[in-house]
Amino acid sequence: MSPAPDVGALVERAREGDARSVARLISLVEDASPLLREAMAALTPYGGRATVIGLTGAPGVGKSTTTDALVTAFRGRGKRVGVLAVDPSSPFSGGALHGDRIRMQDHALDRDVYIRSMASRGHLGGLAWSTPQALRVLDAAGCDVVLVETVGVGQSEVEVARLADTTVVLLAPGMGDAIQAAKAGILEVGDVYVVNKADRDGADAAVRELRHMLTLGERRGPDDWRPPIVKTVASRGEGVEEVVASLDKHRSWLEETGALHERRLHRAADEVQTIALTALRERVGDLRARGGEDGLDALAADVVAGRTDPYAAADRLLDGLTGA
Amino acid sequence: MSPAPDVGALVERAREGDARSVARLISLVEDASPLLREAMAALTPYGGRATVIGLTGAPGVGKSTTTDALVTAFRGRGKRVGVLAVDPSSPFSGGALHGDRIRMQDHALDRDVYIRSMASRGHLGGLAWSTPQALRVLDAAGCDVVLVETVGVGQSEVEVARLADTTVVLLAPGMGDAIQAAKAGILEVGDVYVVNKADRDGADAAVRELRHMLTLGERRGPDDWRPPIVKTVASRGEGVEEVVASLDKHRSWLEETGALHERRLHRAADEVQTIALTALRERVGDLRARGGEDGLDALAADVVAGRTDPYAAADRLLDGLTGA
Repeated sequence: MSPAPDVGALVERAREGDARSVARLISLVEDASPLLREAMAALTPYGGRATVIGLTGAPGVGKSTTTDALVTAFRGRGKRVGVLAVDPSSPFSGGALHGDRIRMQDHALDRDVYIRSMASRGHLGGLAWSTPQALRVLDAAGCDVVLVETVGVGQSEVEVARLADTTVVLLAPGMGDAIQAAKAGILEVGDVYVVNKADRDGADAAVRELRHMLTLGERRGPDDWRPPIVKTVASRGEGVEEVVASLDKHRSWLEETGALHERRLHRAADEVQTIALTALRERVGDLRARGGEDGLDALAADVVAGRTDPYAAADRLLDGLTGA
Repeated sequence: MSPAPDVGALVERAREGDARSVARLISLVEDASPLLREAMAALTPYGGRATVIGLTGAPGVGKSTTTDALVTAFRGRGKRVGVLAVDPSSPFSGGALHGDRIRMQDHALDRDVYIRSMASRGHLGGLAWSTPQALRVLDAAGCDVVLVETVGVGQSEVEVARLADTTVVLLAPGMGDAIQAAKAGILEVGDVYVVNKADRDGADAAVRELRHMLTLGERRGPDDWRPPIVKTVASRGEGVEEVVASLDKHRSWLEETGALHERRLHRAADEVQTIALTALRERVGDLRARGGEDGLDALAADVVAGRTDPYAAADRLLDGLTGA
């Protein structure tokens, strides 16, 4: 363990773009450090500049290749870029199992690119708790664009969509995407759809099928956003400029309609609510340790023995919470 | 909507094995019905008989085929069997997208088999909230064995392991299992490992690799359980009797060591805690709707404007909770 850092100094250096300070601040998030509250308070005045782009899709569709291509495209326009690769299924962080992260080392010497793999498993509040706080760090550090890449499993893609300004959903031909898409609910979250690996058989069919499904679900007014579908071969950079153009177009739409501010209000509300719930959960966790007849162990024993039901036991547990 | 059922009568009929009453009670769980509290209170005295077996693995390893084979094996021994197929990624219930459920219809006319697909996405407390309550229904309805089948994504396999007496982890050759296993943490949750599709190339290699990884992680005393690895071809019933024998052996170990009671205490504690947290979350959700300067919307606007930080806003939100 390193000694407790001076949070104010860290935030100062992170704002100057010092990569190590950015890294330490994100580690505070990962570790759910008690210093986080102070760090977030210090970062808050410097937020709200970065454009947040979510990137999600099933394993194997080429998420990290696409992220990489987008980083190159944004760097070409002189933007400072942050990448958060969030793995909702991994207990590891720092990219231990992200073999494909190595590709990102094209950008490793570029001080205007900040790349970080984050584990969210094991976090009390999961991805919804840690990612917005890591975003605050990258935002304050002067990133113009932050790409949040996550594998679409469970409900992670919904969580990513809730915190992004623009959500890119990636698919690839021949992966049984249609039914997967329906299951995972990705048809509701995409602002831009990308059919990657478009040099493979079935790319056009995948586009047609996706367009059909998007139209089926359509309940849009004349001013509403209609998600475009872009074909790419990200490994060769093909179609990437078109993706960037779609992102720009969506950004303009967000600004013109006021949807950007709405989304950010929702994001902040989610963030506050998640922090509040996590705090409550910790208080309930403390009750678990408490002894006596209203401690969780005693209540659990009553439930197992059939002396009480789980709802009545939960009530008694919560009575302890307000009395604490 | 059907009219509000008489919960007492439903529980009575479910205890007599009436499948429709069992179905309606599980629907109360899925719908997070306000009647649930009454139903759980009525069911509690009749719980604790069923053996709960969790079955988890990546998509494509043959979970439903294996479940099906186990149902046949338990029926052959005259057991009444319940199956809960929990899909943590699906917003649908009742098996809408479970095409492979159709295979289960071999058992459809057997009144001693109760099969139910459950969606857990969208539930406030997810799988950890709904599954234990559905288990209570099947337990009270006289099931000797309940198989809880879930796809191992996110942390669902950990959640299943926490509520099962015995957890079966399924793998199949040639799916890059080693790294997947490490990522998903399945090496910590299995009581019995099954390498299914063992007629395929690479089955022995998968067993060896798995055994190696299990040994690496081993910190076991002489009385501890050492998870066996069983090879199966579930579609032909091969190896299934060996799986059942391993389940029996684990059950004996659980009873002899007192681990069964310990696991059930943990399960009840988790259940009570999850119900308590869900209740708290609902109260926080109510605060979201509340207007005024301590309402969530006003707090979110303050955060977006940089007037306050998310932690301070969460504190103000929770002040409202205790004052409510």
